[in-house]
Amino acid sequence: MAHGGGEMEEGKDEGEENMAAWLLGVKTIKIQPFNLPSLGPHDVRVHIKAVGICGSDIHHFKNMRCANFIVKKPMVLGHECAGIIEEVGSEVKSLAVGDRVALEPGISCRRCNLCKDGRYNLCPEMKFFGSPPTNGSLANKGAMCEPLSVGVHACRRAKIGPEMNVLIIGAGPIGLVTMLAARAFGAPRIVIVDVDCHRLSVAKDLGANGIIQVSTNIQDVGKEVEQIKISMGAGVDVSFDCVGFNKTMSTALSATRAGGRVCLVGLGQSEMTLPLTAVAAREVDVIGIFRYRNTWPLCIEFLRTGKIDVKPLITHRFQFSQKEVEDAFETSARGGNAIKVMFNL
Amino acid sequence: MAHGGGEMEEGKDEGEENMAAWLLGVKTIKIQPFNLPSLGPHDVRVHIKAVGICGSDIHHFKNMRCANFIVKKPMVLGHECAGIIEEVGSEVKSLAVGDRVALEPGISCRRCNLCKDGRYNLCPEMKFFGSPPTNGSLANKGAMCEPLSVGVHACRRAKIGPEMNVLIIGAGPIGLVTMLAARAFGAPRIVIVDVDCHRLSVAKDLGANGIIQVSTNIQDVGKEVEQIKISMGAGVDVSFDCVGFNKTMSTALSATRAGGRVCLVGLGQSEMTLPLTAVAAREVDVIGIFRYRNTWPLCIEFLRTGKIDVKPLITHRFQFSQKEVEDAFETSARGGNAIKVMFNL
Amino acid sequence: MAHGGGEMEEGKDEGEENMAAWLLGVKTIKIQPFNLPSLGPHDVRVHIKAVGICGSDIHHFKNMRCANFIVKKPMVLGHECAGIIEEVGSEVKSLAVGDRVALEPGISCRRCNLCKDGRYNLCPEMKFFGSPPTNGSLANKGAMCEPLSVGVHACRRAKIGPEMNVLIIGAGPIGLVTMLAARAFGAPRIVIVDVDCHRLSVAKDLGANGIIQVSTNIQDVGKEVEQIKISMGAGVDVSFDCVGFNKTMSTALSATRAGGRVCLVGLGQSEMTLPLTAVAAREVDVIGIFRYRNTWPLCIEFLRTGKIDVKPLITHRFQFSQKEVEDAFETSARGGNAIKVMFNL
Amino acid sequence: MAHGGGEMEEGKDEGEENMAAWLLGVKTIKIQPFNLPSLGPHDVRVHIKAVGICGSDIHHFKNMRCANFIVKKPMVLGHECAGIIEEVGSEVKSLAVGDRVALEPGISCRRCNLCKDGRYNLCPEMKFFGSPPTNGSLANKGAMCEPLSVGVHACRRAKIGPEMNVLIIGAGPIGLVTMLAARAFGAPRIVIVDVDCHRLSVAKDLGANGIIQVSTNIQDVGKEVEQIKISMGAGVDVSFDCVGFNKTMSTALSATRAGGRVCLVGLGQSEMTLPLTAVAAREVDVIGIFRYRNTWPLCIEFLRTGKIDVKPLITHRFQFSQKEVEDAFETSARGGNAIKVMFNL
Repeated sequence: MAHGGGEMEEGKDEGEENMAAWLLGVKTIKIQPFNLPSLGPHDVRVHIKAVGICGSDIHHFKNMRCANFIVKKPMVLGHECAGIIEEVGSEVKSLAVGDRVALEPGISCRRCNLCKDGRYNLCPEMKFFGSPPTNGSLANKGAMCEPLSVGVHACRRAKIGPEMNVLIIGAGPIGLVTMLAARAFGAPRIVIVDVDCHRLSVAKDLGANGIIQVSTNIQDVGKEVEQIKISMGAGVDVSFDCVGFNKTMSTALSATRAGGRVCLVGLGQSEMTLPLTAVAAREVDVIGIFRYRNTWPLCIEFLRTGKIDVKPLITHRFQFSQKEVEDAFETSARGGNAIKVMFNL
Repeated sequence: MAHGGGEMEEGKDEGEENMAAWLLGVKTIKIQPFNLPSLGPHDVRVHIKAVGICGSDIHHFKNMRCANFIVKKPMVLGHECAGIIEEVGSEVKSLAVGDRVALEPGISCRRCNLCKDGRYNLCPEMKFFGSPPTNGSLANKGAMCEPLSVGVHACRRAKIGPEMNVLIIGAGPIGLVTMLAARAFGAPRIVIVDVDCHRLSVAKDLGANGIIQVSTNIQDVGKEVEQIKISMGAGVDVSFDCVGFNKTMSTALSATRAGGRVCLVGLGQSEMTLPLTAVAAREVDVIGIFRYRNTWPLCIEFLRTGKIDVKPLITHRFQFSQKEVEDAFETSARGGNAIKVMFNL
Repeated sequence: MAHGGGEMEEGKDEGEENMAAWLLGVKTIKIQPFNLPSLGPHDVRVHIKAVGICGSDIHHFKNMRCANFIVKKPMVLGHECAGIIEEVGSEVKSLAVGDRVALEPGISCRRCNLCKDGRYNLCPEMKFFGSPPTNGSLANKGAMCEPLSVGVHACRRAKIGPEMNVLIIGAGPIGLVTMLAARAFGAPRIVIVDVDCHRLSVAKDLGANGIIQVSTNIQDVGKEVEQIKISMGAGVDVSFDCVGFNKTMSTALSATRAGGRVCLVGLGQSEMTLPLTAVAAREVDVIGIFRYRNTWPLCIEFLRTGKIDVKPLITHRFQFSQKEVEDAFETSARGGNAIKVMFNL
Repeated sequence: MAHGGGEMEEGKDEGEENMAAWLLGVKTIKIQPFNLPSLGPHDVRVHIKAVGICGSDIHHFKNMRCANFIVKKPMVLGHECAGIIEEVGSEVKSLAVGDRVALEPGISCRRCNLCKDGRYNLCPEMKFFGSPPTNGSLANKGAMCEPLSVGVHACRRAKIGPEMNVLIIGAGPIGLVTMLAARAFGAPRIVIVDVDCHRLSVAKDLGANGIIQVSTNIQDVGKEVEQIKISMGAGVDVSFDCVGFNKTMSTALSATRAGGRVCLVGLGQSEMTLPLTAVAAREVDVIGIFRYRNTWPLCIEFLRTGKIDVKPLITHRFQFSQKEVEDAFETSARGGNAIKVMFNL
């Protein structure tokens, strides 16, 4: 079990023994000791109780890389986590031993212009759990704050509110948390599309106003956009592409009304061929997101009040043993009925 | 000479005779009569004194179309115009005969949601001078309000101010007016790139902090982005792509800092292949523009106070005769040293 | 019954006979004929089915003035109305005879800078139903779009969303519609204060998280602000003063966190004595509202979907006879248990 | 001479001896030793070369308090300062010994919600030079970054740009830096008013488009607002009240157009009596400022490029001796021809 303290450093010998799931190579995870770092005055030590598996974990597991982040030496995975405070630093006033906490998994420098401007997710010195070269952590609803944060940050950047009819492309974990967040931000009508019937039925159960099964054939964009507009019964003000392929982005751009916004959340394909000039001439803006910032308080509020219920997303739970860790990663990597795979510790 | 009144309608017989430059077919312009419409209570009749030739006019001239707008029957070109009021409608209070005016060349419906929200440039019922099926108009600095409006609207949408270092791609008329507008909005450093040395020297004379000659070879993007960053001596906060080709957009996206904006102004290519996911993950937003809205008062203020001087952009002037109209369109279509071609009437 | 067409003019003889409630003097309302104007090409004629009585109607009724608007000659009151289309102009495409409509009661000039910028509520040439010198109109839920629009416009200007804990001062009709709008915009916690127990219990029934009875004694501000903070259990991000008195505004300013907003909606007192410098030094911004703009589509959506239910606000209903009109105005003017008084026609 | 390092603490004995100007009581300043704190890894030690005297220093000097900040024990004044790096901490990479620096005089906690949201000036744990209980510092143009930052932050919050005609009330140091900042942000027309002819002539020399001498008599507001409107020759979009008295705020509120903004910068009077409801009904928003945030890079750019020249504001210079320190504070406190009083060290 990896460490989720306030400062992340390579383990030193001074700490007590502690176990973690180390990614040693492609599809090779071993539970091995992880030395805990000493506690600074503003740090807390958290006994991790739950960790979710994220798509980026699966990318690391399968390919030893995710986007431009490359795993160059053994690394502990996991950044969707929650637990219980077991020790606090000398200057810590807002937390006490025994408090249940959800962990925001990144530490920015707090000194650069982007940090001081409140956009710390773009900090070039960010240390982020389970993203090379920083080790991860490996609690239940609290652990869901991390993926939910992606949806919340996307909704904030896309300025979702009660006047924004929303199209969501992709009904995987990120598409679904974006849908839940958009609803919590007041979106009156939400249509969601996916290639998978099962995921669409989960979306429907979670409150989508319309669901449409789509193909992976780019020739179908025109026809599917018509279906989307009919299902919405109104213009699409904001589209979230939670997949990030050429076809999904074409759909998002075509479906969105003049003056609307397309938010690119999924990171499927690195290159896309798109009719951008025609899109620009309709003043449809394309905005991106990178992780999140200042989202934990809001996510905790949504979960606490029941405004968002993430339980239906957790389809599989595993224990922290060598075999179960391997099974968990395989289950998550296979997709299918698995939406969110969670470790209980 | 075409009509530039407050309401544009197909000419009726009741008006006095009046001549206009009609586009009859590919590269075929003839000066022929144009019947003036009667004047409504909120209309004014303008004696046009100057008209500029826009890139869209050249598209119509060469191809009988521009983007999705197709010329299906003879049409009067021209929408960059200024003149003198010669008659006012019964309800007009803010203008009098003899007033010199610059004409905003579009009339929106004023009733749809986009109009009432102040985004009337996106009105689906817009009637726009010299854009099929609406006839155009065919005075000097005043006529330059129209192209300058494109730069002003781009700067407004990209939120240019004294904290925004600006890259401009393309030193044609639109690149140059965007540069002048960005300066007037307070941009501290502006680097401009183009393939053409002459246009770059005009840009330098107009106040660019840095100029860089670039190629049309997409392999050069990496190297040229390095040159841009060195020339800027700081991060690029906002890039304006005033060309709209795959290579120029790649340059804009690569050169812009995390959290910055790329504004796509030029409409060169309909399809582009771009690394959009990586761009989105740096929260570089892509925004488009369509014409402009509410820009005339500001453009007139810029020109009146001398904050912007557009005279250096007007490289060629022609009279309104059959031969000179043909020469003017040929000169503008050829490009080269011609930046803005203007008719004096 | 007054006219609610697309253009408001003093009645002309050409129309059919029609009755309206004319305000002739202080507390003197008579049902007398009102000549209907002829129908322009973009106008529709509406058979009014319901009209609510607004606080401004009561000001006119009691004092022959409201703020700076003075009743100088007999005038028809009423601007909260809905009805059924009975005739449409030659150019009208979006409406047909028999359609049920809610009426936005103002017509702006559509030509001034504020109109073209989308802020048409500030148009200096606005003609507004039942606001001198323009005659008013005299339907049920549809009629509630007008007061609800005030709440919606206030929430938009104050940027209410799921991260905004809201304090509302005043549980009269405007305080209550602002509360309903704030909830629909996603406000997670709403505390409402008033001097009247009955109104607070209505607010509680409508979903307020906290209610506090307050005094009219300015000495109590400090103590009451403490109660508000305890009731909120969090900082107050936005306060709406729906009363507009010295004490209510003092409460709003003191209760709001650094960096928050106070929106002044009520227009109780013309002069207030307030600690503005200390407020400014906490960057608490004071924003005002004037009526609304572009709110009808959203209000209709809220009512249609049941996201907002205004029925509990309609406490009294009257018919359109001389006696009932008098009773209705007296009931509304008396306050007490009366929240919204409505005519059914 | 006080310390201007990266972390401010009460002096400890380990540091070298160093002299500072201590405020011991009302109008009583003594030059006495100040123990330098040890240097942390992210700290730098600055040899201060220039310090300006601020209005808040004068408040402390005269009254041992400023607004709600009270001097309870001997304290070093001064927060407008610049100097040369003489030592850097082990982790400091962006600065080297010998670098000339301008000092932002506050250190926020970097952990609270306001800090993480980029609004660190509102941090409740801010330690601010020369504001009780934190000691101050006592290079010339660099020292002017601090007062200029107030103007820059005010212009940012008021959204100044080339479409904003600006009224500035008060031609003291803060009024003048606000004027210079507004010009640098592109404000096309600036009218400034004051009671003092000399200050107005300085404003005129610094580029004000219009200057108007006003009285302190509140009866004159109406007449003076007319003069302001005539001098502006256009509507006032934004007013900055850099004085903060009942009369100045009345002027600002009356002079500003519907939909405009009034920014309250000066902190003259704690209580004001104002017609706020009428102001709110014109949607004139009242915004305040508290110090500044993220302003140093922009101020340094303005000074470096000459876009802003602050030299004319520095009317008096003094050395760092007991007598000159006393003279300097007396000169600044007296006002009159003294605009900015500066120590050269």
